Amino acid sequence: MNPVLIDLLRGSAVESRHAGALAIVDASGAVHTALGDIDRPIFPRSAVKLLQALPLVASGAAEAFELTDAELALACASHSGEPEHVATAAGVLAKLGLDDTALECGTQWPSREPVLRGMVARGEQAGPLHNNCSGKHSGFVCVACLMARNAGADPAEFARGYVAAQHPVMREVSAALSATTGVDVEGAPRGIDGCSIPTFALPLRALALAFARAGTGQGLSSANAHAARRLREAVAKAPFMVGGADRFDTRVMQAFGERLFCKIGAEGVYCAALPALGLGVALKIDDGAARAAEAAMAAVATALLRAEGELLHGYSHQALRNWRGTDVGSLRPAQALTRALGPHP
Amino acid sequence: MNPVLIDLLRGSAVESRHAGALAIVDASGAVHTALGDIDRPIFPRSAVKLLQALPLVASGAAEAFELTDAELALACASHSGEPEHVATAAGVLAKLGLDDTALECGTQWPSREPVLRGMVARGEQAGPLHNNCSGKHSGFVCVACLMARNAGADPAEFARGYVAAQHPVMREVSAALSATTGVDVEGAPRGIDGCSIPTFALPLRALALAFARAGTGQGLSSANAHAARRLREAVAKAPFMVGGADRFDTRVMQAFGERLFCKIGAEGVYCAALPALGLGVALKIDDGAARAAEAAMAAVATALLRAEGELLHGYSHQALRNWRGTDVGSLRPAQALTRALGPHP
Repeated sequence: MNPVLIDLLRGSAVESRHAGALAIVDASGAVHTALGDIDRPIFPRSAVKLLQALPLVASGAAEAFELTDAELALACASHSGEPEHVATAAGVLAKLGLDDTALECGTQWPSREPVLRGMVARGEQAGPLHNNCSGKHSGFVCVACLMARNAGADPAEFARGYVAAQHPVMREVSAALSATTGVDVEGAPRGIDGCSIPTFALPLRALALAFARAGTGQGLSSANAHAARRLREAVAKAPFMVGGADRFDTRVMQAFGERLFCKIGAEGVYCAALPALGLGVALKIDDGAARAAEAAMAAVATALLRAEGELLHGYSHQALRNWRGTDVGSLRPAQALTRALGPHP
Repeated sequence: MNPVLIDLLRGSAVESRHAGALAIVDASGAVHTALGDIDRPIFPRSAVKLLQALPLVASGAAEAFELTDAELALACASHSGEPEHVATAAGVLAKLGLDDTALECGTQWPSREPVLRGMVARGEQAGPLHNNCSGKHSGFVCVACLMARNAGADPAEFARGYVAAQHPVMREVSAALSATTGVDVEGAPRGIDGCSIPTFALPLRALALAFARAGTGQGLSSANAHAARRLREAVAKAPFMVGGADRFDTRVMQAFGERLFCKIGAEGVYCAALPALGLGVALKIDDGAARAAEAAMAAVATALLRAEGELLHGYSHQALRNWRGTDVGSLRPAQALTRALGPHP
């Protein structure tokens, strides 16, 4: 069993507890902090979108289609389906002469409540552009279109079925994961992600290593090192695209810029790169709770960045309010986590 | 640490795990099944609404205001805010000559998505009647109004502040919890619930005992035994009121009638009574996940009722689908749970 990382307090009593594991490593693979089992494979889900977007830049597709910072940031996003996200994804597809029928991520309503309600009030329907992965998928379609151009094939025809593991685009994406994590994903446990692409279970140690590499360029091919830097810079310039209003990733990266790249994944995963410190972070809450993953990531960022401000504290110690707005409790990093993150030299 | 009760599989690999504890006891307090720590106090939240509704019947208020089966069932509910729930709660208040301004549960939008969207599309606002606890609170107001009548006081005036622990209504509710669980709640860790009333942390063993008693009447005062039977019968006749469309509690009680009373609580709690077997059930998922609480309750009900149908299996082994509707995994009772529930004589 992994240690408890986050407690939920109601009044002064612990009501719920979130166990998990955490790896912080440098680009050589040296372990800075390890808590729980960091060698058990876990599905990183959307926490590795930066790694999955590497072929978009490394292949030359981003350059060929003149993608902007906002468009590159959106390729690394789990966005809330706000108008800016939808318009940006649509703009990428328009550059390719395509529309949302090229996307194979499925339809999802915006996760941001006021946006959803506005659409319902206006009688609008959701489509694949509203899917939180529409930017990542638009990036995949860019790669497919460059491949089609090079092969003299029809772009829409070539792109079709890009979510399948054996499609040339997805083979590039898998290769990027293998190259950065140092684990051959072909041999890893495999599942299907929410957006229909394969997701591979990998150890937290390897995921943290991949983000240390993505933050520093060390241990990567020059093409991947360049791609990782370009994507991190784009995200730092357009952090709204990675999440949206009131989202942890957006707010934290707006505050810390290039000092921190972080990305949530479904089922309680977080990955992060701290380029100036040369560190990569990967954590998984055993039970899959996003609230605990955010609180743990906030505690990690607070410790590593020596950041004592209200923003991160508001997440690591998130207040819980009831339907009348009364304070009824809060999240709190548990002893195992605070001890492990303790005084960092 | 408690054992893992529910696994979440993606593909054939375990992606997330939910630990927890389970107590099944009879009305004498004899333990039928114990898994994990059943003596650590947990907040039962809304899983004890049946117990909190005992004073509504035992005080004579239900009879004085001629409450129907639907109205009594709603007093035990965490409903989805559907029109039938809202109208029924409003009807109870109308019998008292009051309206929704008497409710102190706070405003909550209906949890049932199509209902919520319909309201948004029509430009309607949510109010306290849509709060999932509006039936329970309407019941509290009934008790207050009977107390006011007996004291010759103004009902609305008397009811005001009924959510406070020291209000005469809430003292009756706390006394019912103490009487049924056998634990003096005055000495228990206390928090504020989502609907603003006090919630007391009690051991699963005591909660299971309370439901064994509520199912059989054994160990209860005759007033509470009568009240528990009346409420269980009302719920069995109007199970839609306890939850709503597509809700676990409603569907399962529609199927099993008086053989099973079950009720979910926030943060991963379930309580149940199986009157014919003389058993009470209480379980808590450590991390607070409702998906795991439902799956575990379904596994318990399957074992105790020897029910092999699709309804419970659909919850204990709930399929997970992604945005395109592809099957990507499922929930599954973990080994510790299946072993504990194994062949029941």
